[in-house]
Amino acid sequence: MSPPGSSTPIDGTTNFVHAFPFVAVSIGFSVNKQMEFGVVFSCLEDKMYTARRGGGAFCNGERLQVSSQEDIQQAMVCTEFGSSRDPEVVEKIFCSLRAVLSIPTHGVRGAGTAAINMCLVASGCAEAYYEIGIHVWDIAAGALLVTEAGGVLMDVQGGPVDLMSRRVLAANSPALAERLLQEIHSFCPIRDDAAPSL
Amino acid sequence: MSPPGSSTPIDGTTNFVHAFPFVAVSIGFSVNKQMEFGVVFSCLEDKMYTARRGGGAFCNGERLQVSSQEDIQQAMVCTEFGSSRDPEVVEKIFCSLRAVLSIPTHGVRGAGTAAINMCLVASGCAEAYYEIGIHVWDIAAGALLVTEAGGVLMDVQGGPVDLMSRRVLAANSPALAERLLQEIHSFCPIRDDAAPSL
Repeated sequence: MSPPGSSTPIDGTTNFVHAFPFVAVSIGFSVNKQMEFGVVFSCLEDKMYTARRGGGAFCNGERLQVSSQEDIQQAMVCTEFGSSRDPEVVEKIFCSLRAVLSIPTHGVRGAGTAAINMCLVASGCAEAYYEIGIHVWDIAAGALLVTEAGGVLMDVQGGPVDLMSRRVLAANSPALAERLLQEIHSFCPIRDDAAPSL
Repeated sequence: MSPPGSSTPIDGTTNFVHAFPFVAVSIGFSVNKQMEFGVVFSCLEDKMYTARRGGGAFCNGERLQVSSQEDIQQAMVCTEFGSSRDPEVVEKIFCSLRAVLSIPTHGVRGAGTAAINMCLVASGCAEAYYEIGIHVWDIAAGALLVTEAGGVLMDVQGGPVDLMSRRVLAANSPALAERLLQEIHSFCPIRDDAAPSL
């Protein structure tokens, strides 16, 4: 998905500017708010991730399956610092990050693109990804990839994900997602479907 | 370089376990504490980085040059959370990280391997990389790659780098390195050449 009027169909714009090697094109198609197709192309890795509802998730034609790791201490978790430098937002993000790292998890990484972070979960390279402040056009395709690879999506406070809420937690299993929820300091960015302020 | 008696000649062991796509073999050769050759092979990217003292730095045969970006606010900075979960160490690492992010810099990333982080600086994809707690075998080759690509190395408190001190700051320029120094909360891990405790 592309944001209305946006000139950046690329997810990982900062990476792109620096030639940092994770850059993606992310396209999601939904009908009545249900994701039907999702495609993420990781341009520099030359990996084409595709998913169709009920039809599985694939990378360059090979079927994807989320990790079967259930031990949080062996889990790789992806997240991002986000683009806001508002001290209150940064404080929340750092509190969550530190808590997740100190569980302890096996490692915390961030590709610099939500779409690729979700592909890493779908591929089993990471057990989970969470972020607050992300936009629907960066996560819609990845969301279908994760669920079609056997993973789960939740809101960062628990309950069903709302792709317009700018909050997402993707994981290989409900148990691991629930464990991470305990460490995430949530907040509510302005929704993607909020009426624009005048 | 490999640590004496180590069974992990790979830099990015955690990435390797998870098939996270940054994994490197790093080989450095020094004479009288001066680096003469450095080779880093980023296995999954199939990138071979090579440097010889006075002979330049290369990736798959193409000459490398550090970024010419002098504006810290446009800079991509690489660092890592490290492997220690000692709360005092984590506190220092997070204080530095937050300060560097809030300068503000353009972005903070971590490949999950010191060797590749240094290759990213040598390639101009990142303007700087710093870490405290890293080992000489992970940074020796990368150190030569950075300087042969026109970059600088410093200690995280300023002054010359000491590759055995487990502290390094690599940057595209002295000015950018000096600016970052102001934000790094330093500490002193046990040196790599310290006598082993009995």
